[in-house]
Amino acid sequence: RRRDEAEAAPVGSSFPLGSVRLRRLLRDSAREKAAFVHGQVVGAAGEETDAVLILEKTPFQEEKIEELLRRHGKMELQMSNDIYSTYRLQPPPELSEIKVTVVHPATEKHLQKYLRQEVHLIRETWEDYKNITLPFIQSQSFSIQWVYNILEKKAEADRIIHENPDPCNGFVLVPDFKWNQNQLEDLYLIALIHRRDVKSLRDLTAEHLPLLRNILQEGKEAITKHFGVPGSQLRIYLHYQPSYYHLHVHFTALGYDAPGCSVERAHLLEDVMDNLLLDAQHYQKRALTFPLRADEPLLKRFQEAGRV
Amino acid sequence: RRRDEAEAAPVGSSFPLGSVRLRRLLRDSAREKAAFVHGQVVGAAGEETDAVLILEKTPFQEEKIEELLRRHGKMELQMSNDIYSTYRLQPPPELSEIKVTVVHPATEKHLQKYLRQEVHLIRETWEDYKNITLPFIQSQSFSIQWVYNILEKKAEADRIIHENPDPCNGFVLVPDFKWNQNQLEDLYLIALIHRRDVKSLRDLTAEHLPLLRNILQEGKEAITKHFGVPGSQLRIYLHYQPSYYHLHVHFTALGYDAPGCSVERAHLLEDVMDNLLLDAQHYQKRALTFPLRADEPLLKRFQEAGRV
Repeated sequence: RRRDEAEAAPVGSSFPLGSVRLRRLLRDSAREKAAFVHGQVVGAAGEETDAVLILEKTPFQEEKIEELLRRHGKMELQMSNDIYSTYRLQPPPELSEIKVTVVHPATEKHLQKYLRQEVHLIRETWEDYKNITLPFIQSQSFSIQWVYNILEKKAEADRIIHENPDPCNGFVLVPDFKWNQNQLEDLYLIALIHRRDVKSLRDLTAEHLPLLRNILQEGKEAITKHFGVPGSQLRIYLHYQPSYYHLHVHFTALGYDAPGCSVERAHLLEDVMDNLLLDAQHYQKRALTFPLRADEPLLKRFQEAGRV
Repeated sequence: RRRDEAEAAPVGSSFPLGSVRLRRLLRDSAREKAAFVHGQVVGAAGEETDAVLILEKTPFQEEKIEELLRRHGKMELQMSNDIYSTYRLQPPPELSEIKVTVVHPATEKHLQKYLRQEVHLIRETWEDYKNITLPFIQSQSFSIQWVYNILEKKAEADRIIHENPDPCNGFVLVPDFKWNQNQLEDLYLIALIHRRDVKSLRDLTAEHLPLLRNILQEGKEAITKHFGVPGSQLRIYLHYQPSYYHLHVHFTALGYDAPGCSVERAHLLEDVMDNLLLDAQHYQKRALTFPLRADEPLLKRFQEAGRV
């Protein structure tokens, strides 16, 4: 039925997909089987215009899998070991589909939006933090007014799920922007601390344990009460580097593969608390790994310091 | 070139893919364009055996995208609005590929492994490990013959990327099953250690630092040499719980959002080494978090012990 609706969509000017010239691959996602490409089209008068093409393979349809296995064109054994084997199979065209999204004419901004940046891992020692990262953070004037607006109830006051008003050990829990709250599968909330002197994981010491304990316990309880999701089905973590330097904790549904929950960026709150319990200065001693994109100015600082 | 190597792989007994009967869909991932199905095969004597089939569409290959747009079979405009439009396109079979992984014969355990389940987080103390997890592991008899086949060159010998033959501090580096080696975007290799007495992270002590250092350094060098991917673009980590209890280390492309690289399951090799350097018994002291699916017998053990 959904397909019929789509087919009945209003038809605009058709894009000459077959004659597009590929300029470059902007980005691709091997996991999602998607590719973002910059293409060029030559118009009737010979003028060239830019386009972004997003190609994506479609998910399997359960009812067609058997047919797919029966009617494959070419099949090739690739590897065999014990009970495991892998094959390559060429499906017939009618059982194979690619979705193509076209942005045309595309501006430079569209192209930049989809362009992949190379990412590098940094292994930041405490000295690196003091000499490179901290001066960089201090030289930036990223506004976090939106955080203060929430803490002061000047914005999003009606979205607050829970608050502990203590100025030192309190926090506010709000749904993350990315979550539309329509379904629990991608549940995503953020706890913002009231105190304003903790930039990131690197500032945490044993002094902050009561605050962290409140976030862990009250955050879990509030989410269970409000959304019915038990604490054992929540992934509770901090980012390093964070995207803004006012300490906050992420709560996401465990079954949701949330962006930014990879091991190279996320730190489980419970691990952080255990680290601080065993060594109050853990985060002023240990090396921390994080990814930086090629266009991020902090990467340049690390490169200039000969640390990449 | 890498593809030719794969084609030259030794051919074992072929699985009758075309005559498999589908019993049910165990799980599917719309995001990853993958489906996990339970199939049944009827043997020559009429006996039925179970199989798990994992179908996965393959990532796009950059050099074939233009051809794909030019040579599509059927193309259909789906939606058009301002500068945006979407199309469905049926690719010719030779530009379309599905990877099929077969586990056959499959046991009930294999079927359960791929069946979608609710997931819970466990926070395992060292006492939990000794009293619950370790006895459970010892009571199981999941075969790891396929690991020994690789270590003894009885299988996949032509796939070995690097080997350090030292029986104590050596290892073998091979491409993971999940990677077809056609593109670097989803690069995925596994280092399997030669010694057979280290089940997981929980067994690691400072004694294993030379082995871990070899894996980190030689693994990075071999991947850079063989595939041209620099070490700073690799995510190098262990799983806890692992899917098999013979210590192994994962190497994945940093830009690839690999399954199992989430903070609740992955441990960066460099963090593991730093932990062992500071405290030889770190992994015999600290609590570790990991997810367990509702059907995993280990969860039941934790529930019976009142630990969930």
